[in-house]
Amino acid sequence: MYDVDRIRADFPILGREVNGKPLVYLDNGASAQKPTAVIDAMTRAYSEEYANVHRGLHTLSTIATEKYEGVRETIARFLGAGNSEEIVMNSGTTEGINLVAYGWAMPRMEPGDEIVLSVMEHHANIVPWHFLRERQGVVLNWVETDSTGALDPQKVIDAIGPRTKLVAVSQLSNVLGTKVDVKAITEAAHARDVPVLVDGSQAAVHMPVDVSDIGCDFYAITGHKLYGPSGSGAIYIRKERMAEMRPFIGGGDMIKEVHRDEITWADPPMKFEAGTPGIVQQIGLGVALDYMMDVGMDSIAAHEDSLRDYAVDRLSGLNWLQQQGTTPDKAAIFSFTLDGAAHAHDISTVLDKKGVAVRAGHHCCGPLMDHLGVTATCRASFGMYNTKAEIDVLVDALELCHELFA
Amino acid sequence: MYDVDRIRADFPILGREVNGKPLVYLDNGASAQKPTAVIDAMTRAYSEEYANVHRGLHTLSTIATEKYEGVRETIARFLGAGNSEEIVMNSGTTEGINLVAYGWAMPRMEPGDEIVLSVMEHHANIVPWHFLRERQGVVLNWVETDSTGALDPQKVIDAIGPRTKLVAVSQLSNVLGTKVDVKAITEAAHARDVPVLVDGSQAAVHMPVDVSDIGCDFYAITGHKLYGPSGSGAIYIRKERMAEMRPFIGGGDMIKEVHRDEITWADPPMKFEAGTPGIVQQIGLGVALDYMMDVGMDSIAAHEDSLRDYAVDRLSGLNWLQQQGTTPDKAAIFSFTLDGAAHAHDISTVLDKKGVAVRAGHHCCGPLMDHLGVTATCRASFGMYNTKAEIDVLVDALELCHELFA
Repeated sequence: MYDVDRIRADFPILGREVNGKPLVYLDNGASAQKPTAVIDAMTRAYSEEYANVHRGLHTLSTIATEKYEGVRETIARFLGAGNSEEIVMNSGTTEGINLVAYGWAMPRMEPGDEIVLSVMEHHANIVPWHFLRERQGVVLNWVETDSTGALDPQKVIDAIGPRTKLVAVSQLSNVLGTKVDVKAITEAAHARDVPVLVDGSQAAVHMPVDVSDIGCDFYAITGHKLYGPSGSGAIYIRKERMAEMRPFIGGGDMIKEVHRDEITWADPPMKFEAGTPGIVQQIGLGVALDYMMDVGMDSIAAHEDSLRDYAVDRLSGLNWLQQQGTTPDKAAIFSFTLDGAAHAHDISTVLDKKGVAVRAGHHCCGPLMDHLGVTATCRASFGMYNTKAEIDVLVDALELCHELFA
Repeated sequence: MYDVDRIRADFPILGREVNGKPLVYLDNGASAQKPTAVIDAMTRAYSEEYANVHRGLHTLSTIATEKYEGVRETIARFLGAGNSEEIVMNSGTTEGINLVAYGWAMPRMEPGDEIVLSVMEHHANIVPWHFLRERQGVVLNWVETDSTGALDPQKVIDAIGPRTKLVAVSQLSNVLGTKVDVKAITEAAHARDVPVLVDGSQAAVHMPVDVSDIGCDFYAITGHKLYGPSGSGAIYIRKERMAEMRPFIGGGDMIKEVHRDEITWADPPMKFEAGTPGIVQQIGLGVALDYMMDVGMDSIAAHEDSLRDYAVDRLSGLNWLQQQGTTPDKAAIFSFTLDGAAHAHDISTVLDKKGVAVRAGHHCCGPLMDHLGVTATCRASFGMYNTKAEIDVLVDALELCHELFA
């Protein structure tokens, strides 16, 4: 039995008020709150066990290194990676995808080579490819979603041509909640020798992920959305791809030897982790992933599915509200606009007066906004600690918006 | 009056024991410990005020954004930058110098162009330039230190030739403690229209820094050495240089508009800060810098100078110990080897048994190790909370090493 009250009690911020009302935090798509276990682990790391990692031989450095490197194992387990050496730890998805763009794609893509991606990608999975377009003539081949926000895997597969060098798709849209069959896409892409990068920023939060089952080459996650600290994250990189990559960020820890006119690299994954890493935030991320796995990813997904169903039911009763993204098996992420004059920002401001935190804007999805024909939406995005009662508060607040702006 | 006991009481980890002995933490060159104010600020941020920053309009996002952006002002004040828009916030010096390498140097350097740097640079200020050497034929022009570890600014200036496009030097060596007259170097380099990057990772910890007085173009710092959280940091970039730079990491927050075949960038400094930043660790960094400024950078420097003098006095009595770096005005950083069979790693291990944390290895300074003719040293590096009594413990432990290995 999913005990949402017990889970809520683990997140101290959920007990606070905003504007005199209990906080209803529905901005999980932007960033999730952190359980006490994560916060305490960081406090303990700094108060009792802190030192720089690797190469240090003294006790504190050894403790910090063991804890930090232990997180690599935790991430591998969380993602279903066969080998923790396929996990590069970093500051999040943005750094992860840039590593792939600079370390793998940049040295091997020629003018006219193509990258297939969907119109609902997040800027983190767009801008690095725009760099390649601007700087070396790579062509971005965009696949459209249908009117429900679904992305037909066959359309992605059909977009793969003889010049395609990479498919880069999100497993779960941060705006529409759409889930994408990245396994089918990967199988078909691999049959054409095209590697696949999956942006797992949202998917890994809301559903069980198994990169071995998906079979993808790259799978990027970001810790602060996974109930972990800001500035934490990782990317899974299949061994064969790692072997093809040159280093991206240069500095300490990622080298074997440095001389004046000669340099050799550390073995992967260290080759891709330069300088002092985010030691304590990664330790916190490990605790966050353990927390999620303890609750159970299937249980979290089932709970959020029940929230989704309830929200669909409640929101569909508001005939002045336009929802974007209506696929039946979507995640509990709702983007919408209101009839009449209300700009998304105004809606967000009114909801905030009722304690409800949602996000308004383009959600780092410019091409999707173009595709939808809007400049901004309001987005309510749910997490493992949200409740049906909070959906009722959201709907009440939306009705107030409608009265104010109608 | 510098009250080191009061300062020590602010750092919870300093109260712990290691191997049954009070911790004597002399690994500050690798990373510094954190005061309670920093740890508490992070706990508060996560427990009471956490949300993603920028673009969010709800209360928590507004609070987090104000706190996060306030740190930019604090960093500007700490570094003496005239304008907080010249501060790019990041994960530390490694990311900062890579930003300069990829964003400024890479698009403008031709084969045969030269970068002047010293042999005592840290890998963070070497490897990004090696990338340019390997990938586009840039020549690295190394300036040597003298037998005391001093870097004569005139030798750096003399190394500037018609093909020199950048001077990249550390203001304070992490191995030798040597201070470098980066102001003199900058004046002469600018007279030849050559920009100067200063690696301030160590200097900013141990002495007052004023980038306006130095006049440099780039000044990189790293938060975890500044008594702040892991994964925090910043780089000062003079406005004229910022205007010349292309973006480095691509993702959310650093764009103005993203379309399928067109993209425009946010104005600096946001242009150089992609994705969700290290929100909470930057908030912690702001508190750490305020803590240092409250103690007073001059006071910290004076205290550490007194530690240096005492350590020089005590260590020079050990005629079986070879010190590396003996300039009179150096910082309180001591690298050494011992006569006889003792490898630096063995020394570190023995010291650890006495509760003394030092680092053994190449200290991310391969070319300096080559220059010194060693493969590794042991390094005791001091911070604002260290005491003369701890130097006595270090010396006693070193005498034990000598007995064991002589």
